[in-house]
Amino acid sequence: MTVVMDAAALTEFLLRDFGQVANDYLVESVGTEGVTLRLTVADRHLRPGGTVSGPAIFALVDVAMYLAILSRIGPVALTVTTSCAIDFMRKPAAGCDLRGEARVLKLGRSLAVGDVMVFSDGQAEPVARASLTYSIPPKR
Amino acid sequence: MTVVMDAAALTEFLLRDFGQVANDYLVESVGTEGVTLRLTVADRHLRPGGTVSGPAIFALVDVAMYLAILSRIGPVALTVTTSCAIDFMRKPAAGCDLRGEARVLKLGRSLAVGDVMVFSDGQAEPVARASLTYSIPPKR
Amino acid sequence: MTVVMDAAALTEFLLRDFGQVANDYLVESVGTEGVTLRLTVADRHLRPGGTVSGPAIFALVDVAMYLAILSRIGPVALTVTTSCAIDFMRKPAAGCDLRGEARVLKLGRSLAVGDVMVFSDGQAEPVARASLTYSIPPKR
Amino acid sequence: MTVVMDAAALTEFLLRDFGQVANDYLVESVGTEGVTLRLTVADRHLRPGGTVSGPAIFALVDVAMYLAILSRIGPVALTVTTSCAIDFMRKPAAGCDLRGEARVLKLGRSLAVGDVMVFSDGQAEPVARASLTYSIPPKR
Repeated sequence: MTVVMDAAALTEFLLRDFGQVANDYLVESVGTEGVTLRLTVADRHLRPGGTVSGPAIFALVDVAMYLAILSRIGPVALTVTTSCAIDFMRKPAAGCDLRGEARVLKLGRSLAVGDVMVFSDGQAEPVARASLTYSIPPKR
Repeated sequence: MTVVMDAAALTEFLLRDFGQVANDYLVESVGTEGVTLRLTVADRHLRPGGTVSGPAIFALVDVAMYLAILSRIGPVALTVTTSCAIDFMRKPAAGCDLRGEARVLKLGRSLAVGDVMVFSDGQAEPVARASLTYSIPPKR
Repeated sequence: MTVVMDAAALTEFLLRDFGQVANDYLVESVGTEGVTLRLTVADRHLRPGGTVSGPAIFALVDVAMYLAILSRIGPVALTVTTSCAIDFMRKPAAGCDLRGEARVLKLGRSLAVGDVMVFSDGQAEPVARASLTYSIPPKR
Repeated sequence: MTVVMDAAALTEFLLRDFGQVANDYLVESVGTEGVTLRLTVADRHLRPGGTVSGPAIFALVDVAMYLAILSRIGPVALTVTTSCAIDFMRKPAAGCDLRGEARVLKLGRSLAVGDVMVFSDGQAEPVARASLTYSIPPKR
């Protein structure tokens, strides 16, 4: 598969279309194997006790996979998440950013499927794992 | 199954342990059939275009199911989400609150399973559907 | 939603297109609320110890939801399962048939979503719960 | 993680405890990275048209992950599947065996989580992907 949007193009897309949350994320790498996205953890992502909240992890996997798909098909803004199955496996390490590694497993005409592994920065054992599907609007 | 925490007790629990997000939610009903939780939609829950974001819907189903479990077992704060499978089926109606209807399907000693239907307030067709599992810590 | 194939039509479809497994199942009811399908449990569905196997339960939910979709759209044979998220909650009762209650939650042009509750015959607590999505081929 | 059952031990376990289906499978490799299991496709696994059925693919991922867990914890026969989220992405190639590559992502005291990629023999693009959780009975 060919990459049609690189890290700079994906970052620009985030800033323009998702300005509210763009500053939460850093596009670390984009390649044929997928996209790695960093969540810069801030207070608003934490549950009491200092662990990253479930919704913040969900948002990370959703944005990471969305960008992985766009890196292949370009800025098709109407691509929408249709399902997500996520396993929360370990408590994120305190005071650590999270990294989501997304890969596209299928890119059909109307449906894309992929998965994301989430790690606390510098740790080998995953915090969470998700599989996601997206609906891609028909070309005009 | 018996209800051991009612709407007032669940609301008090939310305010004390989840103060950051407690004002987003309203516990509408608690009974043997489950818990209905309303998300009072505000700007911070919206995507560009005015639709409620995926992470906000995820947070609603997670909190609704968590409260449904606590309504049966009491305030066991270390209960944690282990998995969620969610289908996003329809765009939420604009300018509308969301209601999550959570029911507990299994309440084991260490594992609870349930599902949640999400509706735009006053609409009959569901916006999303999720199944969730939680790990319940052993009693001391 | 209107029902366009009733129990007799669905049974005939099963016999013609799924002859290998048609005798495992009995279409119990078809209505606007969904389809109830019975698995007539035989030795080939059992694990050692006498409990119904996971693959036999998976097959039941898949066929039940497939028939629920066809009951709305007619015999579109190329409709295929794209995903299934299933929770196994309780051991099926020994020596009992299983009943799968399938309902369609969304019927789009190219995607259908639904869920299925599985019960041991005569029991109130579910054995399993599944959500499934199907791809519907475009009309010619 | 250490491997405590090798391919020979897992094969012997299958033959003794799952004699009905043991001949469907071949344990190809066992290592710290996981277990690869081959489904020797026969007529009983096929749908009309010659493609491997959904339940046969489900059974492959379930057995592959089960063996991957046992390779780490030994023959704990009461380990049971509690959930599976599976995406069917491509039609299996006709006349081809399937290979399931299972890896364990978390091995807790009472819960194990892993995922499986399924390929038609010799093909690079996956047929299916599944994540599964298992309940492990407490040690006596």
